[in-house]
Amino acid sequence: MLLLHRAVVLRLQQASRLKSIPSRIYIQACSTNDSFRPQYPSLTFSGDNSSTRGWKVMGTLLGLGAVLAYQDHRCRAAQESTRIYTKEEVSSHTSPETGIWVTLGSEVFDVTEFVDLHPGGPSKLMLAAGGPLEPFWALYAVHNQSHVRELLAQYKIGELNPEDKVAPTVETSDPYADDPVRHPALKVNSQRPFNAEPPPELLTENYITPNPIFFTRNHLPVPNLDPDTYRLHIVGAPGGQSLSLSLDDLHNFPKYEITVTLQCAGNRRSEMTQVKEVKGLEWRTGAISTARWAGARLCDVLAQAGYQLCETEAHVCFEGLDSDPTGTAYGASIPLARAMDPEAEVLLAYEMNGQPLPRDHGFPVRVVVPGVVGARHVKWLGRVSVQPEESYSHWQRRDYKGFSPSVDWDTVDFDSAPSIQELPVQSAITEPRDGETVESGEVTIKGYAWSGGGRAVIRVDVSLDGGLTWQVAKLDEEEQRPRKAWAWRLWQLQAPVPAGQKELNIVCKAVDDGYNVQPDTVAPIWNLRGVLSNAWHRVHVFVAP
Amino acid sequence: MLLLHRAVVLRLQQASRLKSIPSRIYIQACSTNDSFRPQYPSLTFSGDNSSTRGWKVMGTLLGLGAVLAYQDHRCRAAQESTRIYTKEEVSSHTSPETGIWVTLGSEVFDVTEFVDLHPGGPSKLMLAAGGPLEPFWALYAVHNQSHVRELLAQYKIGELNPEDKVAPTVETSDPYADDPVRHPALKVNSQRPFNAEPPPELLTENYITPNPIFFTRNHLPVPNLDPDTYRLHIVGAPGGQSLSLSLDDLHNFPKYEITVTLQCAGNRRSEMTQVKEVKGLEWRTGAISTARWAGARLCDVLAQAGYQLCETEAHVCFEGLDSDPTGTAYGASIPLARAMDPEAEVLLAYEMNGQPLPRDHGFPVRVVVPGVVGARHVKWLGRVSVQPEESYSHWQRRDYKGFSPSVDWDTVDFDSAPSIQELPVQSAITEPRDGETVESGEVTIKGYAWSGGGRAVIRVDVSLDGGLTWQVAKLDEEEQRPRKAWAWRLWQLQAPVPAGQKELNIVCKAVDDGYNVQPDTVAPIWNLRGVLSNAWHRVHVFVAP
Repeated sequence: MLLLHRAVVLRLQQASRLKSIPSRIYIQACSTNDSFRPQYPSLTFSGDNSSTRGWKVMGTLLGLGAVLAYQDHRCRAAQESTRIYTKEEVSSHTSPETGIWVTLGSEVFDVTEFVDLHPGGPSKLMLAAGGPLEPFWALYAVHNQSHVRELLAQYKIGELNPEDKVAPTVETSDPYADDPVRHPALKVNSQRPFNAEPPPELLTENYITPNPIFFTRNHLPVPNLDPDTYRLHIVGAPGGQSLSLSLDDLHNFPKYEITVTLQCAGNRRSEMTQVKEVKGLEWRTGAISTARWAGARLCDVLAQAGYQLCETEAHVCFEGLDSDPTGTAYGASIPLARAMDPEAEVLLAYEMNGQPLPRDHGFPVRVVVPGVVGARHVKWLGRVSVQPEESYSHWQRRDYKGFSPSVDWDTVDFDSAPSIQELPVQSAITEPRDGETVESGEVTIKGYAWSGGGRAVIRVDVSLDGGLTWQVAKLDEEEQRPRKAWAWRLWQLQAPVPAGQKELNIVCKAVDDGYNVQPDTVAPIWNLRGVLSNAWHRVHVFVAP
Repeated sequence: MLLLHRAVVLRLQQASRLKSIPSRIYIQACSTNDSFRPQYPSLTFSGDNSSTRGWKVMGTLLGLGAVLAYQDHRCRAAQESTRIYTKEEVSSHTSPETGIWVTLGSEVFDVTEFVDLHPGGPSKLMLAAGGPLEPFWALYAVHNQSHVRELLAQYKIGELNPEDKVAPTVETSDPYADDPVRHPALKVNSQRPFNAEPPPELLTENYITPNPIFFTRNHLPVPNLDPDTYRLHIVGAPGGQSLSLSLDDLHNFPKYEITVTLQCAGNRRSEMTQVKEVKGLEWRTGAISTARWAGARLCDVLAQAGYQLCETEAHVCFEGLDSDPTGTAYGASIPLARAMDPEAEVLLAYEMNGQPLPRDHGFPVRVVVPGVVGARHVKWLGRVSVQPEESYSHWQRRDYKGFSPSVDWDTVDFDSAPSIQELPVQSAITEPRDGETVESGEVTIKGYAWSGGGRAVIRVDVSLDGGLTWQVAKLDEEEQRPRKAWAWRLWQLQAPVPAGQKELNIVCKAVDDGYNVQPDTVAPIWNLRGVLSNAWHRVHVFVAP
């Protein structure tokens, strides 16, 4: 595998065509009403405006490598192309034993023998096994070239049964029936409400997470809001005026665009569960993603409603338009001081990566509070008010708080702990995966690191021996603004595998510019809700003989 | 011991006089030119304006307990009072074996049999063993009552040799010859330059650290500055004007007073040394102290010199009037954004706990940068300028930075790490002390906790079993302003000693309001300069049978 990759890259380096290759990866445009349509994928592509220097070049090379690898491969017989398969039949071919099948449009392909040759790595192609390629090609648009399609044609084994295209039946009594269709790569932790994370190997593929695989944390069904009639209600200050803002009104405020990482307080909860049971969704390392958000600044909107920063502590309370059967809406709050601080860059966002917000991410308007736990970035925003106390919402007062490991559900006093706002420094390994077998010789380790409050990650240490010795990883070179480092840093380390090692205990830990570090182990930070899980991340791998 | 304390407190509770006892402890007034004069102690006492609610009441009760305990004790024979002792002779009596002697004025006392009865604890009285009581009575002014003196008289064994009062010879060629006289309780890590910390049992006795025992971190000899001719030079902004401010000029700016904890980056370095050798002073847990600082706000002074906050990053560079033989002054810088932010409350301080700054702490003016490492609080301030780059001082660029444990003096690249500004969350146990024997039954554990950047400490967890199980300590009730929690929190835990335990591995760890935690162990945060030592603090004690 490694040798093959090297050969492909080497050949690419020799190819004079190389210079004309765009060094960016394109992301599929998301329509407002559907975050993704697997049956009829949009084939319009929009430029990714995010900066993706350096790290992306390799991805593009590998993408082109796929083309060349296709050419190397023996041609399949075209006569098989008239056989008809059902979708169910295709979906049962997901392993080397059964054969690995995929579809593109109405065509069916057996790519079993190509999987190991896939220059992006077998694991990425396997994400599409048994189903359509479109959602993945939409993410990695380098595939969308005529010669890739020609080469794929060589693996064609037949056609999908045309009668198979049945519209899904809508269960109208189900409050979740109107939820949007989601990307098949997402690892679902809960269907109702929908909560899902991207798989690790996709998570750090791009500095900017493509919208369709951005982690989704919903507490309630997704509201289906009409952008034409949508109004955002801002309760005015005493002596000021209340506002009822249409989307157009919001667009009339100065537009700000910032790159912000969102992380759920429960990210990596599954590691806490291994210590002792907790209440919460079993997030692995993927309850974190990064997007370029655009919208009006909250401080500008609050100023128009007559607010000023005051000496006495106050809180800006947000209410979503998502609600439970009793009509209780999702709610949360942040301190007024943060909301009014232009340097804190709190947004009422209406765009995500250059597109209107996808429904799962708050269409048409959500709050984005840089450096702060995801729970305060209220989606489907309906109402903003300023109160002397924090939001009385369950999610502000009876959830998203940290406690001592000694506190259990019999002894917990939610009023004794502050609501989580800024999050502590965090990092995780996304490649290799736990339990994987890596080549001897050299291992490449990749991951992400982030810290709350605008604190920049300044260093990531990686250990191959469980934490006895450390090496410093190479951080991406994305811009880090002082005090406003709202986005993660991707990192990687290429390290020789010590001779004779049969397994490696890979560990990572990050340091932020307040020199905060991650704790060594999980048990001493265990808490009954399984939040704030930021101990060293550990991955155990085997070394190929 | 414990039973005696209980008996004393019980008796105190019964005494009707109790209600008239002031619930504050008084701190000795420090003169401007000498931080302390052990030979001729000032007996004027100034009220401590700091808030000392709750935690101080117990101290006062124990102080009065001393009086009653004295009364209980057998009377010594007065006929011994005419014997003459040299200071040297007194200083050799510092243990139960040799006898424990102290002096007050010219009188010598043998307090061997009283040490265990001292209601403030034997360890506090032992700090004065072999020397004068005055420096300690100055700190704990409850002793300064006529009946305490009467009772002490019963332990008198003689007088000091009057010829013993020889003025110390001044070595004029020694650049440190003019350094001030220091308090004998300070544990000295280096005499030249002078670096010393208060002993743990005094450190957390008061929320506000008395000036004479505030930890001292000098890099150079202490300058002896004339307040009448002192001038602070502020380099003006382009288009603004440079300022040359006298002390009176500085007093004419609005005066701000805030309680701020200062911590040296090297606090607890001695624990790192145990992992592997580092370069630096062997600070134990005492390179941290808290004072009430008053002065002009740096932002007001900079505004008068024509500065405004600008979009481009800039730095405020401070130069001290202390310098080495080549004339190089101590220097450091902080970002202009912090300096200009009124909420960051950066001071040009001329008062410490209601007194002019002691010489060791920067007389007449020092910088106080709340939430930031001590190294930036430049003392004996001479010059302030705004530069596009950080200070070029050795202490900004080639020191006070953190590195990976893998970095050694052969591989270190000082430019690769940011200068330390905000410090990470920290805590330590001050009682009991490592190696001490505690009573069975119940153990009282005390300590401090603090975090950088104005982040409040929200919880301290304490373990008696090395970190397997945890209990939540009680935090002091001092005011914690949101985002401006510049001062430490003292904490304590009274916990039953598990039956049958012969020893305890006591551990503490703190959590701040960004939910940052301390790392479990020292080795993974080890760094070649031994800074940022904030792993769990561990104390091993024996349990009395």
